[in-house]
Amino acid sequence: MKIFYSEEHRQHYPPFEIFDGGIRVPYYENPDRMDRILAALKGMAWAEFSEPEEFGLDPILAVHDEGYLNFLTSCWGEWLASDPEVAASPETHAFLPATFALRRKARPTSTTVRGLGGYYIMDLSACIVAGTYKASLTSANIALSAASSIVQGLSSAFALCRPPGHHAGKDYAGGYCFINNASVAANWLSQKGKTAILDIDYHAGNGTQDIFYERADVLTISIHGDPDFEYPHYIGFADETGADAGLGFHQNFPLPKGTDDADYLTALDEALNLIRGFAPEYLVLSFGADTFDGDPLGTFRVTRAGFAEIGKKISGLNLPVAIIMEGGYANEALGDNTRTLLENFK
Amino acid sequence: MKIFYSEEHRQHYPPFEIFDGGIRVPYYENPDRMDRILAALKGMAWAEFSEPEEFGLDPILAVHDEGYLNFLTSCWGEWLASDPEVAASPETHAFLPATFALRRKARPTSTTVRGLGGYYIMDLSACIVAGTYKASLTSANIALSAASSIVQGLSSAFALCRPPGHHAGKDYAGGYCFINNASVAANWLSQKGKTAILDIDYHAGNGTQDIFYERADVLTISIHGDPDFEYPHYIGFADETGADAGLGFHQNFPLPKGTDDADYLTALDEALNLIRGFAPEYLVLSFGADTFDGDPLGTFRVTRAGFAEIGKKISGLNLPVAIIMEGGYANEALGDNTRTLLENFK
Repeated sequence: MKIFYSEEHRQHYPPFEIFDGGIRVPYYENPDRMDRILAALKGMAWAEFSEPEEFGLDPILAVHDEGYLNFLTSCWGEWLASDPEVAASPETHAFLPATFALRRKARPTSTTVRGLGGYYIMDLSACIVAGTYKASLTSANIALSAASSIVQGLSSAFALCRPPGHHAGKDYAGGYCFINNASVAANWLSQKGKTAILDIDYHAGNGTQDIFYERADVLTISIHGDPDFEYPHYIGFADETGADAGLGFHQNFPLPKGTDDADYLTALDEALNLIRGFAPEYLVLSFGADTFDGDPLGTFRVTRAGFAEIGKKISGLNLPVAIIMEGGYANEALGDNTRTLLENFK
Repeated sequence: MKIFYSEEHRQHYPPFEIFDGGIRVPYYENPDRMDRILAALKGMAWAEFSEPEEFGLDPILAVHDEGYLNFLTSCWGEWLASDPEVAASPETHAFLPATFALRRKARPTSTTVRGLGGYYIMDLSACIVAGTYKASLTSANIALSAASSIVQGLSSAFALCRPPGHHAGKDYAGGYCFINNASVAANWLSQKGKTAILDIDYHAGNGTQDIFYERADVLTISIHGDPDFEYPHYIGFADETGADAGLGFHQNFPLPKGTDDADYLTALDEALNLIRGFAPEYLVLSFGADTFDGDPLGTFRVTRAGFAEIGKKISGLNLPVAIIMEGGYANEALGDNTRTLLENFK
């Protein structure tokens, strides 16, 4: 299996994030996640590592708002320039906004970094540091490289993306995500053939939903912790099934706390039937390992055997698949869980 | 002058707030602010202190959304129940959300405290602790008591409110504000006679704007730091002049950094002319002292002599006025600045 990866992600390592209640914690979505996955895959005979190709900005601007990308480009520099304390010790700082545009307009009204921040960022985990934009661009190129390789005939490819992408909407960052790698890849693939996205990260793929919500040509499905109790709270409910031309081409499977292998696989079977009905040529799989029993940011109880079964069922679609890395924060188990899933596609 | 005040505010003292960049700082809107004002007023022969009357929930529900008030009522208890660490040391904690409803719907989708939080709270300064709701109710009663006393014939009354109110919208908290005291008082007054609100706090009175934006019967005017660079960033611009029936009955005066007495008084003159044209029977004055030169949360350079002039000009309207305390964070100067303004109305 071709595995696309770059060391560029190491430049994106915010020194903290903030939980509900204003609690400051070390950044959960950290480079160690990649090291664990690399360690688990490096010894495998089937694992063939490649650097990503460069696809330019066009495939990214095809799914993201230009003003939002401009903000990602300029944010850190403006933040540095706005505060002498940040400039004095940038390595201890990250940009995140303190005021949010609850009554959001079609365009931002403020032109300054603090005002733009609360317009283009939805939470306190999408922290921006010096290397965030470049790492995000590279991560999108990793996803595009995997997509390209399945168009060229491979049955599967793994995009070892960091930062992840599925929480990033058309014009906002959130949940450790800045550019929606899976959506960029799926949109690019959709010009080559009918494409579906299946999101099996523990958290709702709100960004992916946002990007394709009015489109009938890309089916999007997300299986996740119910946003009634779980991040991202405001999107990912069962009654959200698309709008306009896209009505009926999005499906959420919000599941309760404690969901185990059996219940998860039941929802997955239903999702796979929807994909079969849609009959795509290509599949993009947003894979998060945070459904794992014991993930610090999850509440499900999916086991390693569960990951094997999940992989088996999805590979049973017999579709060329670009597997895009999303979340997973039980770092010590992350490598083995990821390898277990991938082995079904090799 | 009648001064309405209660010690209830001391129960609302969050242990921290969070600035842009995730920087945790002590709570700027603190009880010491009241102590400074009390110390400056207590020796004055003209200052007559009174406890507020109790007006019940009706005048509050007349301007705020019921779901929002329910959230304020239940938030702290649900936050305590949701996290054993919070329950173990509640005095070191406050509730503030980490995820915000950028694409806000007409009603919240989540029913849990974390999801409701980012729907009903717009920033990281409206921190909720055990005593927040009760202190906010008492603060609203203080404003209503001042309003009632001018209906009874007094030419002026001072509502020494804490928490302040003008950033709280119909259905959201923000900027240290939970219940919009000035709006509650003005709406109540508007049933007795035509009422205008003049907001001279340094920060835009976004909540007051939100509450009266579609109404022609209450004129609302705010003079403040331009939201392009200043909190609250998403509302308070010059082209926002009301909507529907209220079109033309709101006016913002966004002013640049460094605004001094002369420039401030020019804007004030224009605002006062608008009020004269509206010809109200009652005036509600949202007074923040954070326009003061050296306020840690402001950028203006209004002097104490400026506050005397501001008071003189407003009292020159010869309208019965309920003066409602909003912000002001240069604590050491806050008592003298407030007394200087009030002396024009005694």
